[in-house]
Amino acid sequence: MRQTQSLHRAVQQYPDRVATVFNGRRQTFRQLHERVARLAGALQALGMRAGDRVGMLALNSDRTLEFYLAVWWGGGVVNPVNTRWSAAEIAFSLQDCETAILFVDDAFVPMVPELRAQAPCLQTLLYVGEQPVPAGFLGAEQALAAAAPVPDALRSGDDLAGVFYTGGTTGRPKGVMLSQEALATNALLSLVASPLDRDAVLLHSAPLFHLAGLSALMRSLVMGTKNVFLPGFTPGGVLRAVAEERVTNLMLIPVMLQFLLDDPAARTADLSSVRVVGYGASPISEALLERAFGLLPQADFVQGYGMTELAAGVTYLTAEYHSAAGRKLGKLGSAGRALNGVDLRIVDADGRELPRGQVGEIAVRSPCAMSGYWNLPETTAQALRDGWMHTGDAARMDEDGFVFVVDRFKDMVVSGGENVYCGEVEAALTRHPAVAAAAVIGVPHAQWGEAVHAVLVLRPGTTATAEDIQAHCKTLIAGYKCPRSVEFMAALPISGAGKVMKYKLREPHWKERQRGVA
Amino acid sequence: MRQTQSLHRAVQQYPDRVATVFNGRRQTFRQLHERVARLAGALQALGMRAGDRVGMLALNSDRTLEFYLAVWWGGGVVNPVNTRWSAAEIAFSLQDCETAILFVDDAFVPMVPELRAQAPCLQTLLYVGEQPVPAGFLGAEQALAAAAPVPDALRSGDDLAGVFYTGGTTGRPKGVMLSQEALATNALLSLVASPLDRDAVLLHSAPLFHLAGLSALMRSLVMGTKNVFLPGFTPGGVLRAVAEERVTNLMLIPVMLQFLLDDPAARTADLSSVRVVGYGASPISEALLERAFGLLPQADFVQGYGMTELAAGVTYLTAEYHSAAGRKLGKLGSAGRALNGVDLRIVDADGRELPRGQVGEIAVRSPCAMSGYWNLPETTAQALRDGWMHTGDAARMDEDGFVFVVDRFKDMVVSGGENVYCGEVEAALTRHPAVAAAAVIGVPHAQWGEAVHAVLVLRPGTTATAEDIQAHCKTLIAGYKCPRSVEFMAALPISGAGKVMKYKLREPHWKERQRGVA
Repeated sequence: MRQTQSLHRAVQQYPDRVATVFNGRRQTFRQLHERVARLAGALQALGMRAGDRVGMLALNSDRTLEFYLAVWWGGGVVNPVNTRWSAAEIAFSLQDCETAILFVDDAFVPMVPELRAQAPCLQTLLYVGEQPVPAGFLGAEQALAAAAPVPDALRSGDDLAGVFYTGGTTGRPKGVMLSQEALATNALLSLVASPLDRDAVLLHSAPLFHLAGLSALMRSLVMGTKNVFLPGFTPGGVLRAVAEERVTNLMLIPVMLQFLLDDPAARTADLSSVRVVGYGASPISEALLERAFGLLPQADFVQGYGMTELAAGVTYLTAEYHSAAGRKLGKLGSAGRALNGVDLRIVDADGRELPRGQVGEIAVRSPCAMSGYWNLPETTAQALRDGWMHTGDAARMDEDGFVFVVDRFKDMVVSGGENVYCGEVEAALTRHPAVAAAAVIGVPHAQWGEAVHAVLVLRPGTTATAEDIQAHCKTLIAGYKCPRSVEFMAALPISGAGKVMKYKLREPHWKERQRGVA
Repeated sequence: MRQTQSLHRAVQQYPDRVATVFNGRRQTFRQLHERVARLAGALQALGMRAGDRVGMLALNSDRTLEFYLAVWWGGGVVNPVNTRWSAAEIAFSLQDCETAILFVDDAFVPMVPELRAQAPCLQTLLYVGEQPVPAGFLGAEQALAAAAPVPDALRSGDDLAGVFYTGGTTGRPKGVMLSQEALATNALLSLVASPLDRDAVLLHSAPLFHLAGLSALMRSLVMGTKNVFLPGFTPGGVLRAVAEERVTNLMLIPVMLQFLLDDPAARTADLSSVRVVGYGASPISEALLERAFGLLPQADFVQGYGMTELAAGVTYLTAEYHSAAGRKLGKLGSAGRALNGVDLRIVDADGRELPRGQVGEIAVRSPCAMSGYWNLPETTAQALRDGWMHTGDAARMDEDGFVFVVDRFKDMVVSGGENVYCGEVEAALTRHPAVAAAAVIGVPHAQWGEAVHAVLVLRPGTTATAEDIQAHCKTLIAGYKCPRSVEFMAALPISGAGKVMKYKLREPHWKERQRGVA
């Protein structure tokens, strides 16, 4: 299977349906098809060969969908860039998989000189903004107009579709390789678990470089539904788009849901068109959910649990368990059950399945699992063992197969839906001259679920304030990874085996709350 | 992907749901899982190795589902036998792919001596009937009880799942090879096009050795719905089962639908539970459909068009085009549109796509296409060219992508949903000593759609009646392939290229009707 097939089918069956809406600009599937075939031609003319990586550093727009489809249509592999990362992190990910062509929008033009300096792989910068083409860039619109449409390269099955970088436990981002088959199968399995009406209107406000966002876009493409894009999430933007475009499907991470609920305008906005709210990617409280049910009483709620390495969702908590009657079944604190086609087990350290109710690691065998981490065969072999992806998430399964995520084995903080690997932040902290030792943990945060918190031991005779430390970190890593709070100690609690006992550091912060997704 | 995954998932998530109902016997998914794992063990103990073919010659029952799952679970490949074939045809198909183990039910025990004589490949006959085990058979129940459950062999992806024999144009049946992926993907694509409720109850009255029947069973397995089996179709049996088990989904070929409508009991039967009627596999008239809408006003109707070589359906005419409002769209005479994931084109003799509205051959590129014909690389290469399956069906496509099947290129009659290849019948006819030349065509038939009709030229100085000819054919080929009517001519109309001009023979029979599916 392949992603471009849906575009062929759309043109054969419903060419004049609206495919994309962005900032007042609308295009039909016929127009999308024409642009994609030309843009693919432009990419080939720029030297893109089969399997070459092409990146995009931009906020969401209709151009995002064109980017994905044109790269695949022309035979390439997408490398969508996490827009929240620092220039150093982005440059690393581009260089790591040798991305030569990069799409850039207005928001990221200023970052380009730094990227060029750190990522010599970059050869062509394609401008997809709304202003005159800046110096040093090639206008995507101009390239498209000059190119002839090319035939679909038909990348499919095991062919690599994308390299998706995620924060690395070892301090360097890892490129998750997903095949055409993995992405296409994920869309089908998700649609079987939670059908999407042909007349649905999806609002994409969560970033589309993330698998959670992308997988919703791919499901929409399969069904031929309308996509409304917002450059980013704002409560006002979402409320306006819902009312203007009669949006039926929202995909939100809990922090977005909370911003929306906290906005006074939500109480007077016309949200009557909303039929489905998909949420996931970070812990949610039942109190927040209850408020959401109150705001959108007519909507079905669906929760997904997944990860980039599994091409997004592997469990769904479907609408029936969110309904007034369904809530009494006591599954609302769970992430739901494995999708069709997905083998999911709770296993011990040796990979043996545990009895129901016991907490262990979630292991998944799925046709949507990654092909591996780019150029990291050993890390791949650690994660994918005997065909099972070891997620690093701790959970228990009840008698009905519902998965309750209770903690993470990976030393990681999930803040506002983004994974922050503690090791990476600790590496940045210890580069500060005053820091002798550092330990990073997640602490509860009303809006972000968790916030990054640093515990530091200073070198004798030195001083540093929390502000000093934060300013230092911002020069090295993305803003969202920098500690929001800093604590100083005389010494870190060390175990007999010489490891920092982080649970002791977490204790005072979490004593009033259960940590985790549930 | 693989078919057995759904059984693992069922046991994890809803072990106590009813999986099968047959003749008063019910089993849950937990029980089905237990029996399948043991039966797979029994098959391995009988010598089944990875990839070995195992056959079943039986009417529909809960044992049919167990057969499919146990063979796959144990690592084997299914070879489900067309129960309507003659012993000679069945023996050929078993011998062709070297089936050593054959499941047989009470209806087919009497045929076994003849099969044994003609198919020396047969080593073990597993009895799945309801009587004491006949001499020469091993009781499947006894073998199952004596065996230990074995782990799932996890056959998946490109692994061969089954060899499905279809009548051959050259007079010999061809074994269509379908992979685990092809079957699993077909189920998902069908479910996306036409979702199946989790609480659905499917009635299997069409034969499950056919892909049309099997694919419905596989869809049911994915969703974990209840399956009610009838040994075969009778109007009374269907009406009783619907009322007793509150059946929601019927899968019927048009001739069955007609029998049902013609039965006076249908007018008083409780059919209120029926929500979906799937139909297909042979031509249908709009008049028949109108009657069906009248009998089942509350039901959604869905038509499928497909073939064994494509693992069943490739187009669906969905419920919306059967509704009172939808009928006005004028698509009811079509077979619907290509499923997601399926590239479908109308092509000329050189494989070039034709403009909309022009009649050409249906060509399909699909992840569900066969791996090839068993041991027939040349025939495979003729059918599968550049990745496209050439169906032999003639059709046009309208502006909205709807496919109107208008004729068949293959020299074939479709009678009651079964393909009858004219070449095979002609070969049988010309073995009669009085027959000098024979041409077989399809003629209109109220119940069967088409009926097999023979046009014969007798040798000078010989005589033969239609009855003589029919009796002769029955010794060589299956009853349904034998001519239902015979016509004698002095000479066949021969073209300049020396071919029989069958269209001239068909003309007088079809002048009042449009031939074809539409």
